[in-house]
This record gives sequence, structure tokens and C-alpha cells, in this order.
Amino acid sequence: MRDNSGLAKVGEFGLIKKIREQVKDLQAGAVVGIGDDAGGVEVEPGKVVLFTTDTLVENVHFKWDYVSGYQIGWKTLAVNLSDIAAMGGVPTHCLVTLGIPKEVNLSLIDSIYQGLRALASLYNIGIIGGDIVSSPTFFITVALLGEADKENILLRSGAKQGDFIYVTGDLGVSSAGLFCLKEKELNVPIFLREKLQERHLLPSPRVNEGRQIAEAKVASSMIDISDGLVLDLSHILEESGVGAKLWEEKIPVSKEVKKLAKEFNRSFLDWGLYGGEDYELLFTCSSRISLEDIKNGLRFPVTKIGKIVKGPPEIILVGSVGKQRKIEPKGWNHFASPVSGKV
Amino acid sequence: MRDNSGLAKVGEFGLIKKIREQVKDLQAGAVVGIGDDAGGVEVEPGKVVLFTTDTLVENVHFKWDYVSGYQIGWKTLAVNLSDIAAMGGVPTHCLVTLGIPKEVNLSLIDSIYQGLRALASLYNIGIIGGDIVSSPTFFITVALLGEADKENILLRSGAKQGDFIYVTGDLGVSSAGLFCLKEKELNVPIFLREKLQERHLLPSPRVNEGRQIAEAKVASSMIDISDGLVLDLSHILEESGVGAKLWEEKIPVSKEVKKLAKEFNRSFLDWGLYGGEDYELLFTCSSRISLEDIKNGLRFPVTKIGKIVKGPPEIILVGSVGKQRKIEPKGWNHFASPVSGKV
Repeated sequence: MRDNSGLAKVGEFGLIKKIREQVKDLQAGAVVGIGDDAGGVEVEPGKVVLFTTDTLVENVHFKWDYVSGYQIGWKTLAVNLSDIAAMGGVPTHCLVTLGIPKEVNLSLIDSIYQGLRALASLYNIGIIGGDIVSSPTFFITVALLGEADKENILLRSGAKQGDFIYVTGDLGVSSAGLFCLKEKELNVPIFLREKLQERHLLPSPRVNEGRQIAEAKVASSMIDISDGLVLDLSHILEESGVGAKLWEEKIPVSKEVKKLAKEFNRSFLDWGLYGGEDYELLFTCSSRISLEDIKNGLRFPVTKIGKIVKGPPEIILVGSVGKQRKIEPKGWNHFASPVSGKV
Repeated sequence: MRDNSGLAKVGEFGLIKKIREQVKDLQAGAVVGIGDDAGGVEVEPGKVVLFTTDTLVENVHFKWDYVSGYQIGWKTLAVNLSDIAAMGGVPTHCLVTLGIPKEVNLSLIDSIYQGLRALASLYNIGIIGGDIVSSPTFFITVALLGEADKENILLRSGAKQGDFIYVTGDLGVSSAGLFCLKEKELNVPIFLREKLQERHLLPSPRVNEGRQIAEAKVASSMIDISDGLVLDLSHILEESGVGAKLWEEKIPVSKEVKKLAKEFNRSFLDWGLYGGEDYELLFTCSSRISLEDIKNGLRFPVTKIGKIVKGPPEIILVGSVGKQRKIEPKGWNHFASPVSGKV
């Protein structure tokens, strides 16, 4: 059943496109169908149940060398929470599937559930079932339900020409953390190292922020930044049929991440543009809504980083002296490197 | 993070028990929490969204030697539909996760989705998203939503002393089919071989039957027979705090399965009692409801196979001449052999 004919060639996004084609007529009246951060089903007029799933696989998404069971439990739930947050929803209940090699120690399973419990408790998420299977490769899948008012749901497809592009928090931190995790010998101050590593290992999904953005009714589209700013923005552009300009100087990378990158000869801009797993939110707002109004409506800082322009769905990076260059929506091609792909 | 200290020893059900303990306080108001065929969340008064997930892993639950992608797509959805059926619910929308080794041929993914499509179309199920991940081991996970009226939901925990035990359809067919699949050289008539193999490879979940049983309001508890009659009945006994007697002569095994077993020196009774994956439904009814009333209320045949008795949660097999023996809830211990375990 196997050969070398195609998967590596067509890549993750080619495959996902193909799969979407194959099931696009099978949406059974969903209000949000295939192709967004989560699916959505209207369970009573105006009330939507959101439904998403994400998986982490050993040696693909992480290595036990530098990750604990607690962190993997936490992180798998976090990436799912982030998908519900990206729709403006409130996560409620989940199922957990573990694929467990026979030789795994019971204490690892314990610590995975402790990590799941810790984050679930923070957001009052019910863990109401799941599946345990034997598997030569360890994997963990969370399927998560959320709820949202239909009128508040934010899709990838709502961005319009002229809208401004905003992000929560700062970017490239998770990449800087992963860099520290992989380069254990480098002389990085311990406090900084731990802070950055924690952002990679125990990400904080922007659940409350996503909900505020949705309820403030300021945004036209939203997505979470899991695969990197450029790649996730490109999903918005594809779904909305528009292009974008990003202002290089506005990409929010913290001073300490910039300093770390400089010290070890890495590009902080690459971390900010292409580094995945920050789990911040990217959203677009009509230019008629001022930054002040947005800031007043939200109880957390956001950064205006660019503008939606007329299609095609391409991204132009505008440099500090106004020099413009097209940037490719590169990032993680999944069958070359280790990040999940939402169908 | 690994050693040999425990998982094989504690086994699947020991692990599941431990996990249930660990999350039992995290149910977030679910009307059906951890420990049943599906979780349940009340989304408006009286209306429940059911939520379940099941996974099949290559070389654990099946081998590509004797299974096609189409069959694996179909079967993974079927086992999930069966879980919603076992609650008396109507399945509605699903997410599909594929863990795909790099060398897998694209045509395999195509045929998996064709199998998913075929069964999804039959029951008008929306395939509204999912996740694609790279994984050294192939696996497929379906997460499925269903709906049910709260008053109609059937749990594992409702069986009462004096109730009779019923099953839909006949048992041991899937085991007979698996036997044929594994013993390709044996001289089994081709028509019979194909019929039995199809029951193993393309099971028909009892969705309409489960719904009818729930709507007829005749049953006190229900479960689907995925791990084998004895093991699944034992889940009902555990959750309901009762025991059971099974009447050996009443276990519904078809003449052709009996004949096949006899010819090749296998025990048809073992197939009927312990063979998993028939995906029939087992339910209990008050003895005040007659078999005739049950048969009149349902538009499909059922067989009365035993009786619920006072606890402990043990199963007594009553032989043809009245001889009684206790039978162990053996079946598939998952870390010794290949079947999933519902958390």
C-alpha cells in the first residue's frame, strides 16, 4: 500500500486541499464547515457548538528529551483551546485519546493527565471521555467542544480590502524557546532561558482575548498563530480572497528575543514572521475602527502590523525605508517538518 | 521516560480506571461524563450533544495485508457511529485525524476518504474538519458529535435486578470473518467467506436500531458490542452495580458461523461470547415489558439472552442442562492484544 509517489511531493497543504475538495459536499448543514480553525454546528437558533481537534506525535512534534508528560498534556489541550479562541468561542468539554507504546511507564501517563488537568481547571473544561490505544508511536489527540453566539463567530474568510491587521502579544518567543531547548550548551541567562522555554512548552492560549475580540464586534476575521505569522496570515488571505502588506518594523518581537537572536547570529525577524507555536491571535479590523477604539474595547495590548489589500492572496513585506518585497507563505511543510495541519 | 514498570501489568482497564479517577472531578456539568460510550453536554434544556472518539492504529487494530483504505475509512467512522447509537442518539458531524507515514501513497488517503464518504453519506454525517499529522505509525481518529433528547439517552448505568438482557442481530460474525481473513488457505465457500469478511471489514453500526430502542422507551441501559458480549456486558454490570446470568443456548450465533466453527475446530460459543467488533447493541429491559411488546415496538429482530441479577458484577453462564458457571470478563486486554479502550 506504500510507495514514494506523492505525499512528500504534494506536501501537507496539497493534501489538505485535496481532502477539502473530497468532503466539501458533506457538510450536513454546519454553519462553519471544513477549512477553518474549528467546525461549527448550530444547535439552536443563534447558538453554535464549535468542534476542533489537534494531535501531537512523539519525535514529530516533540521529543521526550526535552519535554515532560505534564508539558505534553498541557500543550495538546492548549493548541486546541487556541483554535476555539480563534473563532471567538468559549471552550467547554474535551475528549483525550492516547496512543501508547507497550513499554511506556505509567507515571508518564499520570503526568500527562496532570498537565491536562492543570490547564482544563484554569478554563473549567470538562474531560468527559476519550480512547486509549496501543501504538508503536506515542501520540495524543484532544477533541474539543466550544460554544459561541452565531453572530460573534469570527472566520478566516471575513478579511476585506482596507482592513488593518492586528496581533495580540509578541511573536517569535516560542521559536526562541525551542532554540534554547535545542542548544542546551549555549550561555543564555537561566532566567531568560526558562522564560522562553516555558512559552514553547506551556503556551497560554488566548481564550479570554479571543472572546473579547469577538464580543467587542471589532474584527472581520481571525486565526490563531500556530504555524507562524506569515503562513497563518496566508490562510486568511486564501479564504478571504485578498492580499496583505506587513510592516516589518511593526512585527512585535520583544527586546530580549531580539538580543538573543543577535547574540547567537539568528534572525529575530524570521522567528517573528515564520516561527510557529506562539498561539497569539491575528485578526483584521475595518479601517473605520481606530486603534484607540480597539484598544479601549479590549483589556489587553494589540499591535497593528499591516493592511489587507486587493488580491491575489500574496504578502508584501514593507521594510523600514519603504522597500517592498513579496514573501512566500513558507513555514512548516508538514511532511518535511513537524507541525500539524488543520483540515 | 520509559521502562517496563507497569503498563502491561496494570493493563488497559486498570489504566482506564486510573484515568477516570484522575478526571472525575473535571466534568464541567456534563450530563454524561467519563465512563460511557459517549460524553453528553446539555446545550439547551432537554437537548444533549453527544461526543465520542475512536482510533484505529496500523498493525495494532488492523494490517494493510488484508484491509483496504476504503475499509479503514468506513470502519473507523462505523465504530464511532456505534458509540452514538449505543446512547440512543443520532450522529451528526465528525472530524477526521490522520497520522500518516511519509512514504504512504496518496491513493491510500483517497480511498480512506472514499470509505469515510460512503458511510457518512448513508447517515448524513458532516465531515467538517480534522487534522493531518506526520507519524511513523499510521493511525486514524474520528471524533463524532451526535444529538439526543435528554430523556431518551441510555446509559451503561441503568440496568436493574430482574431486567432481561437483549441483543440485536447475531454475534461472532466479525470473529468468523477475521478468522477467514487470517486463514486465506482454508477451503471456505467463497460466498460465505466474503459475507463474513465483510461483516468484519465493513461493519454496519446499528444507528437506526439504537434510536428506535431509545424512542420506544423500553430499555434501562444500553451499550454497543465492540469488545465482545461478555466484556461489554461486564461494563454495564460495573456501572449499574448488578450481576447477570446469560443463557448459553440463547446466544445468537448463526447456523453458518456454527458450521464454520465446527468444520475448523473452533468454538462458536467463544466467538459469540468473546469475539469483538460485531457492533450489535446490548440492552436491558424491565421484566414488566414483554418480549412481544418489545418486538412490536421495534422494527428489527432482537434476542433475549439473559437476566440481570443482584450484584456483584459477575456473569454466570447457564448451560443447556441448567449447569451454571461463572465466566470471566475476558476479551481483549488492550496492551496484550488489539482493541481500543473507551475512557
